[in-house]
Amino acid sequence: MTDWGTHLRTMRANAPLVQNITNFVAMNVMANVMLAAGASPAMVHDAGEAGEFAGIAQALTLNIGTLSPDWLRGMEAAAQVAHDRGSPWVLDPVAVGATAMRRDAGARLLALKPSVIRGNASEILALAGTAAAGKGADAADSVDAAEGAARDLARLTGGVVAVTGAQDFVTDGARAFRVGNGHPMMPRITVMGCSLTGIVAAFAVGQDTLRATVGALAYYGLAGERAGVQAQGPGSFQVAFLDALHALTPEDVSAGAQVMQA
Amino acid sequence: MTDWGTHLRTMRANAPLVQNITNFVAMNVMANVMLAAGASPAMVHDAGEAGEFAGIAQALTLNIGTLSPDWLRGMEAAAQVAHDRGSPWVLDPVAVGATAMRRDAGARLLALKPSVIRGNASEILALAGTAAAGKGADAADSVDAAEGAARDLARLTGGVVAVTGAQDFVTDGARAFRVGNGHPMMPRITVMGCSLTGIVAAFAVGQDTLRATVGALAYYGLAGERAGVQAQGPGSFQVAFLDALHALTPEDVSAGAQVMQA
Amino acid sequence: MTDWGTHLRTMRANAPLVQNITNFVAMNVMANVMLAAGASPAMVHDAGEAGEFAGIAQALTLNIGTLSPDWLRGMEAAAQVAHDRGSPWVLDPVAVGATAMRRDAGARLLALKPSVIRGNASEILALAGTAAAGKGADAADSVDAAEGAARDLARLTGGVVAVTGAQDFVTDGARAFRVGNGHPMMPRITVMGCSLTGIVAAFAVGQDTLRATVGALAYYGLAGERAGVQAQGPGSFQVAFLDALHALTPEDVSAGAQVMQA
Repeated sequence: MTDWGTHLRTMRANAPLVQNITNFVAMNVMANVMLAAGASPAMVHDAGEAGEFAGIAQALTLNIGTLSPDWLRGMEAAAQVAHDRGSPWVLDPVAVGATAMRRDAGARLLALKPSVIRGNASEILALAGTAAAGKGADAADSVDAAEGAARDLARLTGGVVAVTGAQDFVTDGARAFRVGNGHPMMPRITVMGCSLTGIVAAFAVGQDTLRATVGALAYYGLAGERAGVQAQGPGSFQVAFLDALHALTPEDVSAGAQVMQA
Repeated sequence: MTDWGTHLRTMRANAPLVQNITNFVAMNVMANVMLAAGASPAMVHDAGEAGEFAGIAQALTLNIGTLSPDWLRGMEAAAQVAHDRGSPWVLDPVAVGATAMRRDAGARLLALKPSVIRGNASEILALAGTAAAGKGADAADSVDAAEGAARDLARLTGGVVAVTGAQDFVTDGARAFRVGNGHPMMPRITVMGCSLTGIVAAFAVGQDTLRATVGALAYYGLAGERAGVQAQGPGSFQVAFLDALHALTPEDVSAGAQVMQA
Repeated sequence: MTDWGTHLRTMRANAPLVQNITNFVAMNVMANVMLAAGASPAMVHDAGEAGEFAGIAQALTLNIGTLSPDWLRGMEAAAQVAHDRGSPWVLDPVAVGATAMRRDAGARLLALKPSVIRGNASEILALAGTAAAGKGADAADSVDAAEGAARDLARLTGGVVAVTGAQDFVTDGARAFRVGNGHPMMPRITVMGCSLTGIVAAFAVGQDTLRATVGALAYYGLAGERAGVQAQGPGSFQVAFLDALHALTPEDVSAGAQVMQA
């Protein structure tokens, strides 16, 4: 039996500095999620310093949620440095199928070989379509429907792809896992996925990318389960979720992880 | 007796996709408020995609709280599309009287005929002044003092104007209502008004604009009343407020709405 | 025995309008912290209006956390107006040693003579180095190690420098105080320092800058202590902290302030 809690233990020992170029909605919550988990987030986005800072940080996340051309320049500069240094970087392709600007950004960032892509099923389908033929994606696809696209993207980038939803699917193109942890309240709260992207990046530092991603998803979903027990609604859920991210131990994760090989 | 809860029921059945070009302070809370209520928010602001996205969204909100020329370009592009498609769009003229840049932006956005304008009394007075003679406004006007300006603006735009405060005033230039729901803690928490603007837009989709706006204000104020019972201060108020937005039913709104014709 | 609570009483009586050009992570929390304390925050950053608004506001804060050239232009315009009017302005030099762009911004803003500089030890060391020889700074310096740099910066600007950490050090170059209030959970929550910068600015309006800064730090740390008693983790800490900022009285501050001359 795999000890999935070990990835949380290693992440906390590393306490990695993670640079995040993310959207305006996610900034504060993502930083608090990462601090509660034990990582060290930094939001540095401008093209005038994003690449320089990527030379200091141990990992990088890019999120196109509130995209603009200026921010895309900073993202490309930072991803190039992360790619060249071999530090892990995670792409969060928010609503990548929705507009021409997003499809173009998705294709450009994909070319910089993200170590991990984390998105919902529609985003993974759209991104795979972008790579192949520039297509968009429907809004509400199931995780199952995106498994083929996830494997294709993983083979294309040489990295890991995580499709998150009620049950998550994680693959490096060859191996694959399903993660069943989580709570139905999570989609009713904004930037839960964006914040998870930061957790995945922190876990990826110095660890096997595929297994660390699975460990990150199990930990995050377990915190959601624990919060769900205490919450009266989406307000109290957010409070209890941060408390749970902070309180959960590696042993809790090992005991509670619902992971299957796929 | 009017069944004001019916507007919440219809909004939840629609679960409308609402595009918001709002200020940096409001982004996260506004998204969570709209999700808790049952709507689907999206923050898409750049001029390179804001108009395209407005062709997908069912409603639009514009908020000039942290204005810049780049963002104003995105706002104008999106409002033009919403106007041309006939989808509802709501203007939130934050501090419109404070600087020349804001007065100019207010006048430009007013020309695009917002379906609803939601502001405090000083903002509505300033915006009406902008339209007439470029004047600013005092900082702390009462809702009563802005009723004439609200009627004038409504006739000018052909839309609805909501002046919010201790007691709200809503008019389409001919008919008018007062809404008495709310709690004294609400002004001590930032972006409560900005977030309400998103709720108004969600309610306006597929419903009579005037009555839907009144229904949205009653629902929002009732959530504040419920939160006020539980809160120890502005921190716990915010938590309880999101929980209340999620928990309130159409029947609760019908029973608790304090609405009078004016 | 000094009555440190008097500065909170005066700030609440003033309820000052404070303009903040801060980072995207801090915006919402900083506004709520300032409202909970009794101040009136406004986030106005664009170079097209930042200087004009600085002519209305009673104090100003600048924070380089998510810096860009456009925002730096707004900061310089606003600081110039504050300097010329003699209204207090507070610099928060986030990670000023991390990149060339930040070191340059730090030097430019320092030249505009901030009334107060509030940073952690590494930032104060880096900023002093910037002024002298363009050096960066280590990431995790102790407050003690930055006392000399703080005195140097205070003499250079003619203002006050506050180095915050487990125990804070505040000096105007001649006099100095240490403030012992606070809670170990505070560094595990993002933008606690950024938000404190707004509190310092609000306290500085119409009060002796050095003593008002000390009073602000004691009040803020006491709110942290009170929150720490109730919190289960960083989520519930944030909620209890806002409630405590709102609930604390001048008498509470006078009774609980841990201040020593240094």
